[in-house]
Formats: sequence, structure tokens, C-alpha cells
Amino acid sequence: MKVTVLVGSKSDLESAEKVKARLAEFDVPCEVHVASAHRTPEKVDRLAQDPGTDVFIAMAGLSAALPGTVAARTLKPVIGVPLLGKGLGLDSLLSVVQMPPGVPVATVGLDNTDNAALLAVHILALKYPELNDRLLRYRARWREESPPSGARP
Amino acid sequence: MKVTVLVGSKSDLESAEKVKARLAEFDVPCEVHVASAHRTPEKVDRLAQDPGTDVFIAMAGLSAALPGTVAARTLKPVIGVPLLGKGLGLDSLLSVVQMPPGVPVATVGLDNTDNAALLAVHILALKYPELNDRLLRYRARWREESPPSGARP
Amino acid sequence: MKVTVLVGSKSDLESAEKVKARLAEFDVPCEVHVASAHRTPEKVDRLAQDPGTDVFIAMAGLSAALPGTVAARTLKPVIGVPLLGKGLGLDSLLSVVQMPPGVPVATVGLDNTDNAALLAVHILALKYPELNDRLLRYRARWREESPPSGARP
Amino acid sequence: MKVTVLVGSKSDLESAEKVKARLAEFDVPCEVHVASAHRTPEKVDRLAQDPGTDVFIAMAGLSAALPGTVAARTLKPVIGVPLLGKGLGLDSLLSVVQMPPGVPVATVGLDNTDNAALLAVHILALKYPELNDRLLRYRARWREESPPSGARP
Amino acid sequence: MKVTVLVGSKSDLESAEKVKARLAEFDVPCEVHVASAHRTPEKVDRLAQDPGTDVFIAMAGLSAALPGTVAARTLKPVIGVPLLGKGLGLDSLLSVVQMPPGVPVATVGLDNTDNAALLAVHILALKYPELNDRLLRYRARWREESPPSGARP
Amino acid sequence: MKVTVLVGSKSDLESAEKVKARLAEFDVPCEVHVASAHRTPEKVDRLAQDPGTDVFIAMAGLSAALPGTVAARTLKPVIGVPLLGKGLGLDSLLSVVQMPPGVPVATVGLDNTDNAALLAVHILALKYPELNDRLLRYRARWREESPPSGARP
Amino acid sequence: MKVTVLVGSKSDLESAEKVKARLAEFDVPCEVHVASAHRTPEKVDRLAQDPGTDVFIAMAGLSAALPGTVAARTLKPVIGVPLLGKGLGLDSLLSVVQMPPGVPVATVGLDNTDNAALLAVHILALKYPELNDRLLRYRARWREESPPSGARP
Amino acid sequence: MKVTVLVGSKSDLESAEKVKARLAEFDVPCEVHVASAHRTPEKVDRLAQDPGTDVFIAMAGLSAALPGTVAARTLKPVIGVPLLGKGLGLDSLLSVVQMPPGVPVATVGLDNTDNAALLAVHILALKYPELNDRLLRYRARWREESPPSGARP
Repeated sequence: MKVTVLVGSKSDLESAEKVKARLAEFDVPCEVHVASAHRTPEKVDRLAQDPGTDVFIAMAGLSAALPGTVAARTLKPVIGVPLLGKGLGLDSLLSVVQMPPGVPVATVGLDNTDNAALLAVHILALKYPELNDRLLRYRARWREESPPSGARP
Repeated sequence: MKVTVLVGSKSDLESAEKVKARLAEFDVPCEVHVASAHRTPEKVDRLAQDPGTDVFIAMAGLSAALPGTVAARTLKPVIGVPLLGKGLGLDSLLSVVQMPPGVPVATVGLDNTDNAALLAVHILALKYPELNDRLLRYRARWREESPPSGARP
Repeated sequence: MKVTVLVGSKSDLESAEKVKARLAEFDVPCEVHVASAHRTPEKVDRLAQDPGTDVFIAMAGLSAALPGTVAARTLKPVIGVPLLGKGLGLDSLLSVVQMPPGVPVATVGLDNTDNAALLAVHILALKYPELNDRLLRYRARWREESPPSGARP
Repeated sequence: MKVTVLVGSKSDLESAEKVKARLAEFDVPCEVHVASAHRTPEKVDRLAQDPGTDVFIAMAGLSAALPGTVAARTLKPVIGVPLLGKGLGLDSLLSVVQMPPGVPVATVGLDNTDNAALLAVHILALKYPELNDRLLRYRARWREESPPSGARP
Repeated sequence: MKVTVLVGSKSDLESAEKVKARLAEFDVPCEVHVASAHRTPEKVDRLAQDPGTDVFIAMAGLSAALPGTVAARTLKPVIGVPLLGKGLGLDSLLSVVQMPPGVPVATVGLDNTDNAALLAVHILALKYPELNDRLLRYRARWREESPPSGARP
Repeated sequence: MKVTVLVGSKSDLESAEKVKARLAEFDVPCEVHVASAHRTPEKVDRLAQDPGTDVFIAMAGLSAALPGTVAARTLKPVIGVPLLGKGLGLDSLLSVVQMPPGVPVATVGLDNTDNAALLAVHILALKYPELNDRLLRYRARWREESPPSGARP
Repeated sequence: MKVTVLVGSKSDLESAEKVKARLAEFDVPCEVHVASAHRTPEKVDRLAQDPGTDVFIAMAGLSAALPGTVAARTLKPVIGVPLLGKGLGLDSLLSVVQMPPGVPVATVGLDNTDNAALLAVHILALKYPELNDRLLRYRARWREESPPSGARP
Repeated sequence: MKVTVLVGSKSDLESAEKVKARLAEFDVPCEVHVASAHRTPEKVDRLAQDPGTDVFIAMAGLSAALPGTVAARTLKPVIGVPLLGKGLGLDSLLSVVQMPPGVPVATVGLDNTDNAALLAVHILALKYPELNDRLLRYRARWREESPPSGARP
């Protein structure tokens, strides 16, 4: 079981670490890589073909090509996280979600690293049923606690 | 193996049928239900707890609460398809993708029924490896043919 | 006479308290509850069916399903307050106001807790005519004083 | 019991008639007036002070000043309906909903005449409890039928 | 010769003073009034009919009804200045500029008090030719100096 | 007394003719010229310096430089009309209204040729008082008739 | 001398042919290829490294990754043309223009095939001075004729 | 070899200096001028006809007419950089990129001075092949280092 997180530059590593930390709560192994669709396409290619990865999470700001690039190179599900960075918000959001037919990217909200990690766990639970118990426990806590409602945890 | 597609009203059934037709190309069984988060929440509840469903696809226009409602009631992955309908486009898109932390919806592009079906197949392939061959064949055809680039097939 | 205010998470309680304080100026009793359409739908259900409540006010950010969820479960008027939080503004605004036909939400401006409270009083005054005097006095003060014109008081 | 509908010009009368027809299903009397905040402010003034009206509905496109103008001149609840007309959509929507603190307008979705009428009935039912039965019957039909999900019925 | 500046609340007086200061550079007399289309419509009415005023400047944020209200009550030119305040920017901008046919408001940019004052002087110069020399001198300085390019001076 | 209307290309002449027709109702002489800020800047220069013109109206779509170009070359008031054409609407609207400080353009609504003509008459009436009677008669008709509320007459 | 035009799917060939036709007026050779960043990345790679090409033009709709993909794989200038297609307009526009630092795409307006071709000629004229005469002649005609002002010729 | 950078006011000189610094890394000579399309059009005219300039870069905020003004007066390629300044972002972006057919501006992202400089070097390399080596070295470093992904370096 493995989730591979790709960010296009070191400056986005902080967001990737948030995903990793959330996945760790579910004991889901997570590798984080800096790999850019434009700067290191071969690295993206190689990572996208990693047979050990079950789910990819790709995060990017501005014109965010990374999620779609990964999605076009793997048969595994790809989760896209648009990052606000120094952009307009709508730029990365629309770049990630408005993919042409044939290359689906499972998009979550702007900067919503929590939902990216959780979506990965929900997907993984199809194959690894032991995650269902952890999801149930998470849901129970989630119902009791009151996490901040902001979208950028 | 089953995908359950929910639309909030009969008027969205045409979009649901497009999803179903695309899934049929992969021999993925698909049930379509009209069930509204507002009008028939118990039906949504019941469907969301269907143990036989692997992946949900929920489609809605305007303020589109259906995908999030399903996502909050199941541990299975939920794909959300914002529909343009008679809205502004941004209304359904933002309603589906900007979910609060804790309730991830795997959002695809506006009216992008193709990508909703394909994303479901990519997710299902984690559990049902026989789908990988079909995805490979689809990808091969997809590379050769030139499907319309429009987002609302 | 009672107004019930619902917020989806503790982090929105500050906005709820502003509503409560404004209602107190009119001697309108107000209960505040944290109840989430996604995390605690049964609580929302139960609160929405409270026979003692005359008007509901539901406040939420991002994809804001709470106001519509309440509105679909009660015959009482429901006022929706989109909150900016860490979202884009248009996300919560469009989610609250662009409800499908059949589930009206009386939407006020972004973060406009003042107008939510006042709208509740105007509505209540239909049934409780004693509020009209208080509204007249409020209007008189409002004309004389010059409250800040900003939308997020 | 009376709802007064104001539209700023004859060209919006068709939308007003839709509201009236929907209200007639609930046996709610409804008067429709053409009265413009700019062209006939005295008429707006006079209508806004009609003691026989319980709820106002004001509809306008473009920079839509009518709902706020009515709201500033009455203690009765005012429902605002932004109309698309030949505008951008966001112009009338933001003009109606983003009212300054002190002048609440209960805004419904763009062109959503259905929700304007229903919101009026929900508000009236506080004072006229006989409407609750009609709302229950409407809700029952609404749950069974599947009205078009489009926002501009 | 007189320019009358109207703002809807005391909180906008700072912007009005910027207009007045710029007009003073042209020796154009300027009166500033707090008068709200909603709170003190009679004051707006009275001011709008002031026979001594040549040009009106009305400034407002959020749903900005003041400029149009003044324009509908006078035959004099009315300049509208949308203010950002705590709004979205597009709310006041669209409210001021997208007036229905028949009520023109001469709109300048968001928070652009400089251009409001200058536009008033250009208009006044039609009637008071002595202003042309001052405009020529201003233009000469403007060409030499390099005022900040920001829109909200 | 003369209004000079400039459009950047022959395809916008239809809009210019609407302005001219409306001005003719007020017996305001109007010249229409095709002159482009980019293609024929010298012609724009020459027209902008026409001493016989009292008010300029410049109309353009897309990135609409014409109104600002005229405004920078004359001391006369310049009215800008953003045209939708085949653009996004916001492109011409923002290009015309968001002028940098020092170059005011009196902007009216998108495609709102009516308001451009009327604003010109209001401005001209400062210098030519005989127009006030015609404006009063227009206002009287305007109050009685109910012109279409659409913004693009 | 050669311009290579890439479109992501056959459905965009019509736009590519418009570019080619415009380039032909300048006797600039032009090759058109269907090559998708997602479907046929190797073909994009190969074309991007074509030593005979002086300038690339890449056209795409929705989340438009093609221009940036080409730009990251060549040292030649890359012109990006966002296409409206069935998208929102802002999706392709922001995807093409908001490239991260390091991968410049010379973006022209939405569907503006004319400007894409002309920009290519202006760039080529640096290396092939014989194009300057043709540009001068084009400019002369452009000044005389009045091409439609619409952005999507 | 020379790049000429134009900014409309001194307040934009900081952005111009960033372009110059980046060009210096490629040993590309760069002149920076303050020249405004509105305040000093003759200076823009004169600079635009400078025979020694190979590529122009024009930067502006708000309604950004400078890039198009330069483009209409030269046969050399013109790169446009929309600046955020105190505007809305979309104002300068749309003003620069949505040019009418016939006046192409090679637009880069909002505040993206890096990409403006790099695009200039890619264009210059067509005529000055010695730049290709420097671009190759830059690309190598760019692939290794991880520059901040923000759009406004």
C-alpha cells in the first residue's frame, strides 16, 4: 500500500507534508517527491509508472499541469490539489479540474490537503479493507471534534 | 462490482445515462437513481449505505449538495460532477469541489460525464485488476482516435 | 418566540454570537447550535424539526450545504449567511443563494451577520407585532447614527 | 394576507406572473405592480408602506436597486429576486444580496421565481398557520414529482 | 460652481475628503454630505435637487445604490465611485456601472477618487472655461511627475 | 454643440448609430467616426483635439483602449462604452472603467448605448441650458413608458 | 523558416487552419499537427525538438496544458492560444497564461488565431528581415480596411 | 542586441528592474524607460520606433494600455506583463491579453517578470544563436534548482 505525492517545486513541500501527516494517521505509507511536469518530465514519467503506488496525489499552483500529466501516464487514480500560492485561486482550480475528456483528475478544494489525504484513504479502502475501521474511527472523532471549517487546514 | 450514479432530478438523467454508457464499455455494472439531498434524503441515506456499491457518482447543478451529502454518508469514494444546467457554471463547480475538510468529493470538470466514468474505472481497477486491461485498451484507442476536446461530451 | 442559529463548526461560533447579540437588542431569544450537515445530520434533522423555533439562521463557508439542508427539513423560514472563512467568497455565496427550486434559502450578504439578525426580526414581526416598535426604534437610531458601511460588521 | 410583487419595468412582468401563479397554488393573494426605484420612487414609497402587505417580493436585473429600496421603506420582510435579463448575472445577484448592514434583503437565486414564492409562503405561515398544511402537501408532491433542476423555472 | 459629494456613511468620509482635496487644487468648491439612499432618502432627494450644484459625485461600497439614486433625481451629471470597503470589489463596481437604461452614472474605477475629481473638472470646464487653464497646468505636471499607477490613490 | 462618437472598427458602427439616434431625440448634433487607437492613432489624435466637440463618446470591445486614448488627448469629458462583441464582457468593462489615476473615463454599462447618449446630454445641459427642458420631457416620458429593463437596448 | 502549429485534438483543426491561412498571406510555411500533451506526449516531445521550426503555436481549450508542455521542451518561442470550446473561457485563458516562472508562453487572446499568426510573423521578422516588408504592407491594409473587432475571427 | 522595457510610471520601476536583472544573467542588454501611453504618448511613439531594439517588454496595471500601444507602433515583438498593483488582477490581465485582432501582445502571467525576461531571450535566440547556450545552461540549472512556484517572483 502506497500513496505517492508529487509537488512541482520545493516551495510546495509544506503542503505535501500535511498530506503525509494526515495519511500517517491511517498508517498509510506515503512517499513525497518533487517532480515537475515542465522541469523534470522524465521523473514524473518514472514516478507515474511506479507499480507500487496505489494512488497519486499531485499538487500545484498557477497553471497547474502536474495532476493531468501524472493522470495521463498511469492507470492509477490521481488526486489533484490546486494550490493558491501567489496565483488567483481560480487559475489553479480551473487548471486542475477542467481536464479534457479522457484524463480524469479527482480534484479537491483549493489548498485542501486534508481532503486529498482522506480521498486517498477512501479509495485505498476498496482494496485494503482494513482501512475501513480506521475510517470509521476517524469519522467518529470527526463527528465529535469540531475541526476548523476553513478550507486550507 | 457496481457503480451507483445519483442525480437529484429526472432532468439530469440524460447525463447519468452518458456515464452509464461509458461504464458499459468497461463492463462495469451501473445503477442510476434519482435521489435528492433535499427532497428524498432518506433515499440518499439508504443508497449511500448500499454495501454492494464500490464507487458513487453524484451529479447536480446550481448549489449542488448531493455529492457532499453522499460523501458524508459512506466510506466509499464519491465522484462529483457539477452540471451547468441553467446555472452560472461556477455555482455548481464551486459547490462540488470546495467541500470542507473531512468530506472529500472527487470532482471532475463541468458536465464532464466522460471523466466521471473513467475516474470510477481507474478507482475500481485497484480492487478489480481485470479492469486494467480494459483501461489499457481504452487508452490505446484514446491515443489513436481524436475525441472532441470539448468538456461536455 | 425563538430564533435558532446553526453553524457547522465551532470555528464559526463567533459569527453566531454576533447574530445572537444583535437579536438580543430586540429581546428576541436565540439559541446557538453547532450542527453540521455532514458530520451530525441527525442533529440538524432534530433541530430543524424543533417546533419552538420560528426562524432558522444557518451560517457556513466554502461549499455551504447547511442552510439548504435545514431548509429542506422545516417549514419555517431559513436565513442563510455565507461566510468568507478561508474560501473564495463566491463559493459560499453561490452555494447558499443558488438553491434549486423548491428549497428557498433567504440569503443575506457575505459575513453579514447584522442583516441576518435584522431579517429574522422583520420576519418575526409578522407574528409578534410587539417587535414592530423595536424595529421602528432601531430604524430611528440607524438613520441617525452612521454604522460602518462595510459588509462584515 | 397579501404578497406584493414589484418589478421595475413591464418587461419583467412575465417573471412576476410566475411568482403570482405559484402563490395562487397556496391561495395566497398577490398583487403585481410595475414600480421603479428610479422612475417612480414615490410609487415604490407608497407601495412599500401599504399596511395590507405581509411580504414584498422585488425583482430586478442589472444594477438592481429595487429590492433594497423597498426594504429601506418597510418593516415587512422583503424578498429579492435577481434577474439575468441582458446582464452578466453577477451584476443583479451581487446588487441584490450584498446589501449594507441595516437593510436586509432575503435573496433567492438568479431568476428563481419559484423559490421567491415559496419563501414568501414559508414566512407567511408563521402568521397564517393554515398555510402549513398547504406547504406540507406541496412538499409531499415535490418529493414525488421531479421538477426540473434548472434554476430558472 | 459647486461639486456635491455624497457618501452613504461616515466611514466613507475619508474617500470624500480625497475628492475634495483634489478639487481644491482646481479651486472648485466642493460640499461633502453623508446621505444614504436607504437611511436618509429625503436628504438624498433634497441634495439631489440643489440648484447650486453642477456635478454630483456619489461614492458607495457593496450593493451601491447611492449613485443611481442621485442620478434618478437630478438632471445634473452624476459621477459614481465604487468603493472596495469590505466587499468583493465586483459588487460595488457592477452595482454602480450596470445601471438600467435611462439612469446614466458616469462610473470611474474602484476607489479611484482622483479620477472622480478630475472627471468632475473636465465636465465643469464645459461651462466654466477658466478651468481649462488649470486642467492644462495639471496635465503638464501630470506628464512630468509620475504619480503612483495604483488605482486607489 | 456637438458630440463626437468614435468606434474602433466598422463592425461597431451599429452601436454608434444607436447613440446618434438617441441624441437626435434631444436635437444634439452628433458625428460618428471610425478611428482606432491602434490602427489610426493620428486620426484619434486629430479628432480628440477637435475644438468643436463638447463631449466624446468612445466605444470598444475586448481590451478597449480607445476611450482612454481619447481621454488622454482632450480636456473634454469622455464617455466610454464597453461593448460585449465576441469578448467575455468583463474584458471591455474592466478595460474601460479601471483607468489609472489622471485619465478619467466616464464609463456606462456594457453595451448601454442609451445611457451613453443620456449622460452626454446631462453633461451638455450644464453649458446648453435649453437641453434641460428636453431632459425634463424625456424624464416625464421615461417615467410613464416602461422601456425594456435590459442593459443592451 | 517554419511555424509549427499543434492542436490537441482534431476538433481544434479548424482553428489551426485559420492560423495557417493567415501565415500563408506572409508566405510563412506552416505545419499543422494534432499532438496531445496527454494522449501523445512522445509526439509532442518529438515535434518540440524539431530543429527546423522557428516558432511554435499551441492551441487548446479547457485545462490547456499543451502550450506549456511544448514550451518546456524547446528553446524556441511558443505562442499559446486559449480556445473557448465548450469551456468557461477563463479556464483555458488562465491555464495558458498563468505559467509558473521558467516556462514562458506568449499568450494571445481567447480564440484569437489572427493574433497568434501575426505574433509569429513579428517574431520571425527578427531573423528573416524580408518579413518586415510584408508586415508593413499588412499594417497598411489593416489601417485602411476595418477588420471585425471581434476577438474570435 | 537590445531589449527595451517600458513602464507607465515610476512606481512600476521595481518590476522593470527584475526583468533587467534576469536579462543580465543572459548578457542581454536592456534599457528601462518610464513612458506612459496616456501621459507621454510621443515618448512611447519614439521608443517604439527605436531601430536598435529587438524586443519590447511593456508592463502595466489596471486598464493596461501600454503593451498594445507599443505593439501598434512597431514591427518588433512586444511582450506584455500585467501587473497586479492595486487592481483586481483580472483588469490588467484581460486588458493586456484580450487585444483585438491585428495587434498581438505576447502576454505572460500576472506580475511574472521572470517569464517576460525569459520569453524575450527565447525570441532573441532566433536571431542571436549564441543565446541558445545560455538558455541551455539556464534550463539545466532550472531543472536542478527548485525556484519558488509562485507567479510573482
